[in-house]
Amino acid sequence: MFAVTILGNNSAIPTLDRHPTAQIVTCNDQLLLVDCGEGTQLQITLYKIKRSRIRYILISHLHGDHYFGLIGLLNTFNLMSRTEPLSVYGPPELEQIIRLQLDCSGTVLKFELSFIVLTPGYSGLILEDKDLRVSCFPTQHRITCFGFSFEMQKRKRKLIPEQARAYEIPASYYSKLQEGADYEKKDGTIVKNDWVTLPPGKGKRYVYCADTIYDVNLLLWLKGADAIYHETTYLHDLADRAAERYHTTTVQAATLAADAGVKRLLIGHFSSKYTDLQPFLDETRPVFANTDIAEEGVSYLI
Amino acid sequence: MFAVTILGNNSAIPTLDRHPTAQIVTCNDQLLLVDCGEGTQLQITLYKIKRSRIRYILISHLHGDHYFGLIGLLNTFNLMSRTEPLSVYGPPELEQIIRLQLDCSGTVLKFELSFIVLTPGYSGLILEDKDLRVSCFPTQHRITCFGFSFEMQKRKRKLIPEQARAYEIPASYYSKLQEGADYEKKDGTIVKNDWVTLPPGKGKRYVYCADTIYDVNLLLWLKGADAIYHETTYLHDLADRAAERYHTTTVQAATLAADAGVKRLLIGHFSSKYTDLQPFLDETRPVFANTDIAEEGVSYLI
Repeated sequence: MFAVTILGNNSAIPTLDRHPTAQIVTCNDQLLLVDCGEGTQLQITLYKIKRSRIRYILISHLHGDHYFGLIGLLNTFNLMSRTEPLSVYGPPELEQIIRLQLDCSGTVLKFELSFIVLTPGYSGLILEDKDLRVSCFPTQHRITCFGFSFEMQKRKRKLIPEQARAYEIPASYYSKLQEGADYEKKDGTIVKNDWVTLPPGKGKRYVYCADTIYDVNLLLWLKGADAIYHETTYLHDLADRAAERYHTTTVQAATLAADAGVKRLLIGHFSSKYTDLQPFLDETRPVFANTDIAEEGVSYLI
Repeated sequence: MFAVTILGNNSAIPTLDRHPTAQIVTCNDQLLLVDCGEGTQLQITLYKIKRSRIRYILISHLHGDHYFGLIGLLNTFNLMSRTEPLSVYGPPELEQIIRLQLDCSGTVLKFELSFIVLTPGYSGLILEDKDLRVSCFPTQHRITCFGFSFEMQKRKRKLIPEQARAYEIPASYYSKLQEGADYEKKDGTIVKNDWVTLPPGKGKRYVYCADTIYDVNLLLWLKGADAIYHETTYLHDLADRAAERYHTTTVQAATLAADAGVKRLLIGHFSSKYTDLQPFLDETRPVFANTDIAEEGVSYLI
């Protein structure tokens, strides 16, 4: 399974029914937490996310609505006697902020905590584990900020059934073929794997664009993605304010999605000033039809 | 009015229905926030506390369940364009933790933020404003920790009605007498204020004991208080664990309240392992009858 679960879809000021940014990316049995606003640990509890499965946490930038919940989550991991190692990816100062708070409380972690620094401006692969590859790329925001691209890699080769049958390979051996094995016939002759299979297809891709001004440079990362999350902090009448604060509007996000030819657009990071979110759909869908509000507690299959 | 409103009554691991420690002390039009666990800003919203009225925040110690919500609250104050100055009292490292996070996010505060360091071991007056005097005192916990004593000062002198009538002072002038004024009769003779009033009575006192091991030294601060809040992290069968972790049990807190002769005991900081809190009352009330669970969202008059 490849999915993203929304834990928070609001911008800076949390409200009682919309929380600051946090998402869980699920890739089979692996969970990654992407951003971690205040209260994320309670959202994890509320939506019954298996927290011990989270091995990686990615923090896009150091505005509080994207990371103030991290120290509390780490603390709770420790109080719950976590032993699984955890890697946190984020801007350079993040480790200092976290270590200082752990030190001041006299906390000794029972699990291995590693920080991987995302160097300002860097783009490229940052993480590869099991079926998942994660890359980061800079976005244009008021402070150093990164988006993340998640690609679920297909490991299984594509079987060509008519070829397999032509070589009289038993169907019970097909899964081995998909894993790349050759087949030895009873008479000792070898059927080479690539005679009966094709290379794995391209994996699905989800791109999280974090906080950003409207930026066509992102198209490079968005092109052909199966699903993307793009912020729409404001409706389009506030395009000036959005630009001034390095945020994006509905129409701008939808335009990027359309220009990049992605399959699906999720929008979020709504300003607390909005209580009704329907206008966000009303403005995006005419430009890019397959848009949805990133609803808290909902898992979207990629 | 002199009251305490409970925003969180749980210990370290927050749950969906019990939050980490935070309380609002109300003294007429002044509000003070005492401790500020993660999510306190949402509890403030939920219970309709007027946040702009909070001029003082007191942090007892640097375990996360008592302060992880502070940075988020300050950030929200700023996003809401607060202009009123704010003073934060807490252990020495608190300012560094907060300033570092403000710096990393490029935040420029629109209001004046002062930190007042509570020096380890210090006890005595820390704050006097309008009708309120606040003192701090050290408690015995795993790290430097302070309790706080709040005294609402009575400003009005006590009228002696029969004396006032004997001097033929009109009742419309009684409030002036309570403020300390003399009275001039029509013939020009002066009635001295202290002929018709007595000095103001002793003010009411609320004592917050923060996190602490069972400690009879606290009696000095608790004696004669009108209400106290004392942690009862564990039921009494876990007295050993309580001592080991520098916490207190039900029976211990009730014994202190009884020995100090306080009028009322509020208990809180319950371990997340307990879902039913009734046993906490069952164990405290036989020792100190006027005990209540510090319920979230409830204001207790002192």
